[in-house]
Amino acid sequence: MPNQRIAVIGGVAAGPAAAAEARRTDPEAEIVLFEQGPHISYGACEIPYYIDNRVEDAETLIVFTPEKFEAARGTVVRTRHRVLGIDPKRARLDVKDLRTETVTEERFDKIILATGARSRLPDFEGLEAPNAFPVRRLDEAKALKTYLEHEEVRHAVILGGGHIGVEMAESLHERGIRVTIVEPGEGLLNRYINRGFQEMVHKEMDRHGVAIHQELPTGVECDRRGRITAVRTDRGEKIGCQLVLIAIGLELNTELGEAAGARLGPSGAFDVDAQMRTSVPNLWACGDCAEVERVIDGKKIHLPLSPVAFRSARVAARNAARKGRGAPARFPGVTPASAVVFFDLEVAAVGLHLDEAREAGFDAFSVAFEGTSRVSFYPGARPLHVYYVVERQTGRILGAQLLGEEGAALRANVLVPLVREGATVSAIKDLDLIYTPPVAPSLDPLLRAAARAERKL
Amino acid sequence: MPNQRIAVIGGVAAGPAAAAEARRTDPEAEIVLFEQGPHISYGACEIPYYIDNRVEDAETLIVFTPEKFEAARGTVVRTRHRVLGIDPKRARLDVKDLRTETVTEERFDKIILATGARSRLPDFEGLEAPNAFPVRRLDEAKALKTYLEHEEVRHAVILGGGHIGVEMAESLHERGIRVTIVEPGEGLLNRYINRGFQEMVHKEMDRHGVAIHQELPTGVECDRRGRITAVRTDRGEKIGCQLVLIAIGLELNTELGEAAGARLGPSGAFDVDAQMRTSVPNLWACGDCAEVERVIDGKKIHLPLSPVAFRSARVAARNAARKGRGAPARFPGVTPASAVVFFDLEVAAVGLHLDEAREAGFDAFSVAFEGTSRVSFYPGARPLHVYYVVERQTGRILGAQLLGEEGAALRANVLVPLVREGATVSAIKDLDLIYTPPVAPSLDPLLRAAARAERKL
Repeated sequence: MPNQRIAVIGGVAAGPAAAAEARRTDPEAEIVLFEQGPHISYGACEIPYYIDNRVEDAETLIVFTPEKFEAARGTVVRTRHRVLGIDPKRARLDVKDLRTETVTEERFDKIILATGARSRLPDFEGLEAPNAFPVRRLDEAKALKTYLEHEEVRHAVILGGGHIGVEMAESLHERGIRVTIVEPGEGLLNRYINRGFQEMVHKEMDRHGVAIHQELPTGVECDRRGRITAVRTDRGEKIGCQLVLIAIGLELNTELGEAAGARLGPSGAFDVDAQMRTSVPNLWACGDCAEVERVIDGKKIHLPLSPVAFRSARVAARNAARKGRGAPARFPGVTPASAVVFFDLEVAAVGLHLDEAREAGFDAFSVAFEGTSRVSFYPGARPLHVYYVVERQTGRILGAQLLGEEGAALRANVLVPLVREGATVSAIKDLDLIYTPPVAPSLDPLLRAAARAERKL
Repeated sequence: MPNQRIAVIGGVAAGPAAAAEARRTDPEAEIVLFEQGPHISYGACEIPYYIDNRVEDAETLIVFTPEKFEAARGTVVRTRHRVLGIDPKRARLDVKDLRTETVTEERFDKIILATGARSRLPDFEGLEAPNAFPVRRLDEAKALKTYLEHEEVRHAVILGGGHIGVEMAESLHERGIRVTIVEPGEGLLNRYINRGFQEMVHKEMDRHGVAIHQELPTGVECDRRGRITAVRTDRGEKIGCQLVLIAIGLELNTELGEAAGARLGPSGAFDVDAQMRTSVPNLWACGDCAEVERVIDGKKIHLPLSPVAFRSARVAARNAARKGRGAPARFPGVTPASAVVFFDLEVAAVGLHLDEAREAGFDAFSVAFEGTSRVSFYPGARPLHVYYVVERQTGRILGAQLLGEEGAALRANVLVPLVREGATVSAIKDLDLIYTPPVAPSLDPLLRAAARAERKL
């Protein structure tokens, strides 16, 4: 008899991390991982490279098959099982086996929600067409790749110009497909980077023949076989295409937890404390479905990034499995930091952008600096753009954006702990960053941007 | 009449930075920069790339000619002038014009020593040969390149396996010359990296046909024309060669300041306070000839790195020129951080290595981790080695070394502020470092190394 039974619901990033950590914390517990799809534990962020064959086989993206995970982690894995309901008072789950359609009731002492998110769909009809694909899940990516291998696609429309839209534009382009991105409003990677950087991103797309329509998609036209032949926009445009990718954002899978009584926070994700506990006893949440605290200003945000999922999962699982022994694990909050690489550009952002900083109540200004990735006359040196968001009163760095053909993302990492701790630009300008001609100029662009910001104080 | 006259002695890195900062601080002062060689303000760190033609012209290495510096910075520049003596009490300099051999006495209110260092020579005869070259100064580098262009060199011996020796090995190899490095003791980059990394460095050299003799050079043999034909070692070896490079270390140019009464610190460089003042009134020192405080343990060290030279020069010059107005500028100390790139390797080190940590009184241990520079299955991913030096009691990171074919040096920069502040490996493992498959795996090697170190605590 196991001393406790722990259910983990959701099998992609946070779920397997939670199951593994629960096992490490309590070697005696029975741990069951439920996943409604066929796969667990795969690299969703690598899907664009699977589509364009930088990574040929879908299997390469899979870290663990269910069987291997069971063997390596000593947990039970039930793929193609959907949890229909949670009764936290009775400690029961209703679980449907999607292959047999049978529903069983199972007892669990602790339940960890790692239900994540799904692709949000535009609010018009027609996207169930066989040539329209979200590209969030591995099975969706496999379906897309199979389609591309068997059907002629000359022109694709990508709905959404965020990270995934931008990466998929490169992927399809690499496959020889002409691409149009439809993104209403201010442009690609909006609310992620500043206007100057957006213009450089647009230029990079233009250089590779990717068209950008800053319009709202309003509908699609289909042929007799039900395939989409064009996307319509609010400006009356009709963009003919043979493929549509849907990448306009996420919808959180919170329904199951909500029905069990778990409260949502202002971000729309589960309201959890630093132990990753939901408002319902014995119910934890982690990964993309749970809120996290942004350390810079204490705001609870939704930050669907894989490292955050792993870290929050480990905290949730340790606390779920520890049976009151020792001190509870605490999630230390986040400093948002991410990058997107497409064509010849790296674009990275850390902390708050200017609008976010002002929304958070900071009297903030921005400063931009253009340096070079290496010593300027060393072969291969490329422009490197640095943009800081700084609090006027204190000189504290609140956020940063970097853009360049090399060295932007790794340089942004230098700023992650500095933004987290609220380092001042004066302190940053004096950091002993490495100078070595093939990798960095004698005064790194990070330092020179900080010196420029200091002069503006 | 200028309100004050400021002399800056030494024209390479710290000197011009000091002269420029003095000008910014006091637009009225008369500022004279003295340099005994023909060039000022050039990139000495780029000399290896000038030798192998990655940078073709010596002129490219020159940031400012004397004329351009005078025009841009509004200072007087006197190249080929050697300061023979300083009389601090009378505020006088004896200056020799090396072209005319005339000596004049000049009055200066403030004097800034930026006299730097010169190549140390081995203590045996024969190195005045026309085919033996130190490669610290631009004129030395030009002489070497001219020699290489006109004489047949099939095999070169490099005395010294530090940064410069290692970089020059690649440079000569790129010119088609077979290279042997003679470095007594434990091997290349000794006291800079750990044994495991040293082995990888040796392998990389071996892969490119560079021979390493872990022996002490004891003499040279010359032909009738006075050219070196072989280097002898303490093991009785006789290494035939047509060229010798001298890169066994530095000798500080402190004689001038010492004669004026300036005290040296335990490192052998000028003992200065946080304002970069020497022990003699109105005499400042900066750059390679001045000590700096290592923040990690408060020790005064000699750290001849160009960014340190620039920063210490600005502090010295601001204080020399400010005439008591406002608060004095303070040098914030250093966190040693540097990298060397040769053949396909980047090797970087931050903070203390294990021996240094123990010498400084820390109960320290080391941990090594091998990860990958990108997501492991993303094209181009290469092994990335991380090595941390950690204080046992506190978990504080004291130093780090990184080695890999890409991403080692920029990743090391992430650790610079963390080592400076004494962050713990527990805090480091939870940092939100960027995950993007072409640049970094989902848990960066920096984080995984920290997690491993935490488990060892």
